[in-house]
Amino acid sequence: MKQLGTHLVIDAWHCPAYLLNDPERIRTAILDAVTAGEATLIDFCVHQFSPHGVTATATLAESHIAIHTWPEYGYFAADLFFCGRGNPRKAAEHLETALQAGEVNRREFERGFEPSVSLDTSSVSVSETSPATNLTAFPETSFAGR
Amino acid sequence: MKQLGTHLVIDAWHCPAYLLNDPERIRTAILDAVTAGEATLIDFCVHQFSPHGVTATATLAESHIAIHTWPEYGYFAADLFFCGRGNPRKAAEHLETALQAGEVNRREFERGFEPSVSLDTSSVSVSETSPATNLTAFPETSFAGR
Repeated sequence: MKQLGTHLVIDAWHCPAYLLNDPERIRTAILDAVTAGEATLIDFCVHQFSPHGVTATATLAESHIAIHTWPEYGYFAADLFFCGRGNPRKAAEHLETALQAGEVNRREFERGFEPSVSLDTSSVSVSETSPATNLTAFPETSFAGR
Repeated sequence: MKQLGTHLVIDAWHCPAYLLNDPERIRTAILDAVTAGEATLIDFCVHQFSPHGVTATATLAESHIAIHTWPEYGYFAADLFFCGRGNPRKAAEHLETALQAGEVNRREFERGFEPSVSLDTSSVSVSETSPATNLTAFPETSFAGR
């Protein structure tokens, strides 16, 4: 697999409901998680639902962090997608601690794709005939801009 | 499990590179996917990286859609998290079609938590002693506000 990102999927519960319904605390928790993860914020939305619940979506140079809270269950769902730079595990630890999660189910997935391979009797090689067009016009990123 | 959301994790490749590096096409693809998924847009960020690559993050009343593209590989990563309303599969199908994905690895996860259970000789019951505080002040949402 050509791995291009790491995705942490967090389901956390037994959190204090008042924390999960406080958009300012959620904002601070995510901003501090971005710092802990050595990431760079591009855009940020924090939305308070009625009658309760908060959603926050942080667009990062490294990809994104999103959180959705259900105060009535003491539960939040968080996703931390990092494209190879930064430290998503440190960011996740900060978020879980800041929101006082009593129980956490954290899953980690590699994100990427399976390069096409051509099998013959002598070698295995990456296919040169990808249907994606003009890929050569886009040299591999150094992450300088992501 | 108390399921509160459905999360589609999409890794797609063999896409035309020019599509994946066009923020206006990405914007349109996501807005149309939101419509196809019968979702409601709250906030939207589309960011063009240098030298190439696009990230877009749509905050929804139903949760979020995020996409990150690597034109140099003809690859994009998309996440569609829906909290119970709407149709994330329809939204995913639209996104995959609009970006002309030749290969797709789509995974689907339930998001939620495991309620505490107390076992005794007569029954299995949900624990009344969650450490989450003041949950009763937050009645279960009807999704009216999410």
